[in-house]
Amino acid sequence: MNSTKKIIEHGKPSEEDLPYSTYVRAGDMIYVSGLVGFGADFEIVRGGVVAETHQILADAKRILAQAGATLGDVIKTNVCLPNADDFDAFNAAYTEYFKSNAPARAIICAGLTIGAAVEIEFIAYCPPN
Amino acid sequence: MNSTKKIIEHGKPSEEDLPYSTYVRAGDMIYVSGLVGFGADFEIVRGGVVAETHQILADAKRILAQAGATLGDVIKTNVCLPNADDFDAFNAAYTEYFKSNAPARAIICAGLTIGAAVEIEFIAYCPPN
Amino acid sequence: MNSTKKIIEHGKPSEEDLPYSTYVRAGDMIYVSGLVGFGADFEIVRGGVVAETHQILADAKRILAQAGATLGDVIKTNVCLPNADDFDAFNAAYTEYFKSNAPARAIICAGLTIGAAVEIEFIAYCPPN
Repeated sequence: MNSTKKIIEHGKPSEEDLPYSTYVRAGDMIYVSGLVGFGADFEIVRGGVVAETHQILADAKRILAQAGATLGDVIKTNVCLPNADDFDAFNAAYTEYFKSNAPARAIICAGLTIGAAVEIEFIAYCPPN
Repeated sequence: MNSTKKIIEHGKPSEEDLPYSTYVRAGDMIYVSGLVGFGADFEIVRGGVVAETHQILADAKRILAQAGATLGDVIKTNVCLPNADDFDAFNAAYTEYFKSNAPARAIICAGLTIGAAVEIEFIAYCPPN
Repeated sequence: MNSTKKIIEHGKPSEEDLPYSTYVRAGDMIYVSGLVGFGADFEIVRGGVVAETHQILADAKRILAQAGATLGDVIKTNVCLPNADDFDAFNAAYTEYFKSNAPARAIICAGLTIGAAVEIEFIAYCPPN
């Protein structure tokens, strides 16, 4: 591979017809859009931050697979946790997916455009084959 | 180009004399600082989230051109929308610039250090010629 | 170096036993986790946003050194400043570390999961030797 070769690959457009791609590969990096815990029919899954975190990680795994990557390739996450009291419960669920060599991470407590308990962005590093 | 060659290029310093560069190129990636809808004299343009979004995208286009890139090279955006009720109006304006192969995106609802309705960060992927 | 060679290096796990690495190198990029101004015993240092900013930059310098990089390699920062009134004081402290060729930057005003006045994330560009 020539490093000057431009490699961009776009994942599916938003299923909600919103102006974003589910992921974009740019060279060796894969940027996954901010995910919330959508279940069927774009309803946030019931069960609060733990259920939503598991839903998000399942979706991230599926989206990364479309990009040829896995959760093990994730090197950075950004977490938005509207309610700071959810911190411990969030960590307990999140840890199940990143037991060792966890990604770098930042968490802030801000609102979201939908009534969700958590949003997570993922960056994966996965040079194309 | 040798991928180990270090390529860093800094855009102009902040016009407000604040400690940031308008953009930084790092290898194949261009990071644009968070933009708000400044018009003349560092006043936020009138008209709310729609006018501000158009101003930001015009500024992003100009800044990316200085870095040798275009809006078509943008692969990720981060949007801060203080008022969640602005979501639909923001999307309508933003979509005009990213009709297909849209960047990955995340939106949070937090405050800003100035009375603006929206801030957008851009990452572009554009290997140097 | 072959650009397709996968280079990932994880910094130390969180000292608090939380699921993140202090930094991750991914190719030429180093992502540092969001830092708050922890002093001894994971207490936020006294003195407010200025003292915390100096603590964070000292920690960032130390962490980047572990990754083979310096503050001069930082090309992007993301700042979370819960109190917008801290903007000027934050800038004054932050500027001491980035006098010229400052990183691109974005600032939002959101809460944090701990009682801190500021959190900063750092991305450095530093091809491995």
